[in-house]
Amino acid sequence: MITLQDWKQPPASVGMSVSTIDTPALLIDMEAFEQNLAAVHQRVRDAGVALRAHAKAHKSVHIARLQMLAGASGLCCQKASEAQVFIEAGIRNVLITNQVVGQGKVERVARLATMAEISVCVDAEIQITQLGVAARAAGVHVGVYIEVDIGHGRCGVTTASQALALAEVIASYQPVLTLSGIHAFRGSAQHMREPDARAQAVAFAVTRIREVIAMLADAGHHCPQVTGGGTGTYELEAMSGVYTEVQPGSYVLMDTDYASNIPSASAPALRHALFGLCTVISQSPTHAVLDGGLKAFAVDLGLPRMVLPGWTVKSLSDEHAVIVPEVGAPPLQIGDKVRLIPSHCDPTVNLHDWLIALRGQIVEDIWPVSARGALF
Amino acid sequence: MITLQDWKQPPASVGMSVSTIDTPALLIDMEAFEQNLAAVHQRVRDAGVALRAHAKAHKSVHIARLQMLAGASGLCCQKASEAQVFIEAGIRNVLITNQVVGQGKVERVARLATMAEISVCVDAEIQITQLGVAARAAGVHVGVYIEVDIGHGRCGVTTASQALALAEVIASYQPVLTLSGIHAFRGSAQHMREPDARAQAVAFAVTRIREVIAMLADAGHHCPQVTGGGTGTYELEAMSGVYTEVQPGSYVLMDTDYASNIPSASAPALRHALFGLCTVISQSPTHAVLDGGLKAFAVDLGLPRMVLPGWTVKSLSDEHAVIVPEVGAPPLQIGDKVRLIPSHCDPTVNLHDWLIALRGQIVEDIWPVSARGALF
Repeated sequence: MITLQDWKQPPASVGMSVSTIDTPALLIDMEAFEQNLAAVHQRVRDAGVALRAHAKAHKSVHIARLQMLAGASGLCCQKASEAQVFIEAGIRNVLITNQVVGQGKVERVARLATMAEISVCVDAEIQITQLGVAARAAGVHVGVYIEVDIGHGRCGVTTASQALALAEVIASYQPVLTLSGIHAFRGSAQHMREPDARAQAVAFAVTRIREVIAMLADAGHHCPQVTGGGTGTYELEAMSGVYTEVQPGSYVLMDTDYASNIPSASAPALRHALFGLCTVISQSPTHAVLDGGLKAFAVDLGLPRMVLPGWTVKSLSDEHAVIVPEVGAPPLQIGDKVRLIPSHCDPTVNLHDWLIALRGQIVEDIWPVSARGALF
Repeated sequence: MITLQDWKQPPASVGMSVSTIDTPALLIDMEAFEQNLAAVHQRVRDAGVALRAHAKAHKSVHIARLQMLAGASGLCCQKASEAQVFIEAGIRNVLITNQVVGQGKVERVARLATMAEISVCVDAEIQITQLGVAARAAGVHVGVYIEVDIGHGRCGVTTASQALALAEVIASYQPVLTLSGIHAFRGSAQHMREPDARAQAVAFAVTRIREVIAMLADAGHHCPQVTGGGTGTYELEAMSGVYTEVQPGSYVLMDTDYASNIPSASAPALRHALFGLCTVISQSPTHAVLDGGLKAFAVDLGLPRMVLPGWTVKSLSDEHAVIVPEVGAPPLQIGDKVRLIPSHCDPTVNLHDWLIALRGQIVEDIWPVSARGALF
């Protein structure tokens, strides 16, 4: 048997021109990436709160390190296994912005707590009990955030008295568990197009959080941190006077969905830094076909968008995109390479093994999607 | 640094009960899988044509071997890298049901041709030229199928004279390239709900294919094979008198989209064999939250469906599913495990590293998703 180049190798090498990258591939425009990174960290620093970058958007150890260098207070992860990837890569402060349920999972959190400061979210007593038992057995400390539902309708308690009941349970596991504060995130608010709608959503959140904090304080439970907010609303939480930390993730990469938000006057403009690179593999008078489909682009927030003017993505199937031209669109030939902007960066990155960092037209670095498939 | 169990290990072990599998995970119900496999291969054998199973649906070397044992004439793959995975695992006959464009890719095909019978699809001269040059340089033989568009509006020539022009180019590269026949697949026809609509679609295809074959024959070009058809229509192509081979893929796993087709009277019934297993991580009077979202289930053909009666998936976000009960639905508690049926098996399997083969409630085997991420 002959040995082929392993298909799991990256589709590019450092120094290569973009025109020779194998496709479909995910590109990062480093100028846009660095500009987004600097601008958002500066804006949050100016507001006087911490930025804990959400790693679920990029799943890349390299990007996480750049975020820490830019001043991030730590990382958010969505799963214990995702946290493990970043902690083993040297990140020393991780919040799992999720409920961690199940023996194997709380034991993983407890073991990670020997290597890093780690905290999790809870909205029910059983989660605290499982975690407390595991933390005691391992002799470690885990921070606990009470998740408060601020309108998302997913996880989180909805009343201050529920939060108080959980704070009492957390207190019963001192010192292995301590109340780190409140986690209050509303995914749907990130994607409200109008700045006023986002402002109203955050104002509602702030009111509910103040109620919770007040009731907890009356009972002697101090909330050091209030954390939440994403790329769509981080500026509002940062200026709210109640949040101590914001959690944007997509801000470094961006996607067409976030670009559809009408920005507030004071928010720094963010540029598209993430692109899919595809090759034209078939061509007809009515359309052309690209070599990237549902296995290269997530479509939960719509189809990706062509960068080349005059061309629109009509449909995706497993491994194909059909694109159609307007009258007067520049012609495309088989073999041409084109860029597309993903509609939703998080699940799109999760489809790829590599991010190709480009400076201009040249490959500057190649970053594995380190936590791809870290579902557990 | 302590060593944690690698999160890339499978979420189960052989002999384990389903209740202890880590989540989110993909399960295969082996009884349903084996029944689907046997029934479809028997039906196609009865019709007197070959079954070349499409590996893009499962990306699993283990499933491919079971399909070969069940009498498959070979495999279909969608990418050269995907073909490499299966050829290196010992499959000796692979058709890439796609246009292969680019120097690195045709060279990969040429090298694979030293290990297995391999063929590809073409719909333009440049694809044949690139492949012919690579095959000559490597001293190998590659089979070539002219793709005919039978209504899909994606790849493929639309007229017999275009097909003839390509056949002449293929002939100019003899003996390294030979015309294997015609590839004629219409993805959209697979998902037409009414049997009559599917029958009309295949009748249209047969008419166009006959025209192409006749014009090629008049010019002295023999078409040994006509290949196409998927899980929705394979029976029609098998009985058409013109197709020599059918290419179902999803038939072994099934999904809610294929289950929405009204079956023809003569087609064997197919059972759901693929399930996502999730854990309830949060619970409220109005809803519960599962630990699998957009990174565990593809949603291009809709949300996954709960197996438990009375519960419906309301929404998915990156790592969560919100499920809502009807009045009288059985209660769910945090920690409960539930099964969901994916809406589209191909891109769902591509999100996972492992398929857990279950016999009843016991893990019988664990299969890696060998070609996950083989995009090139």
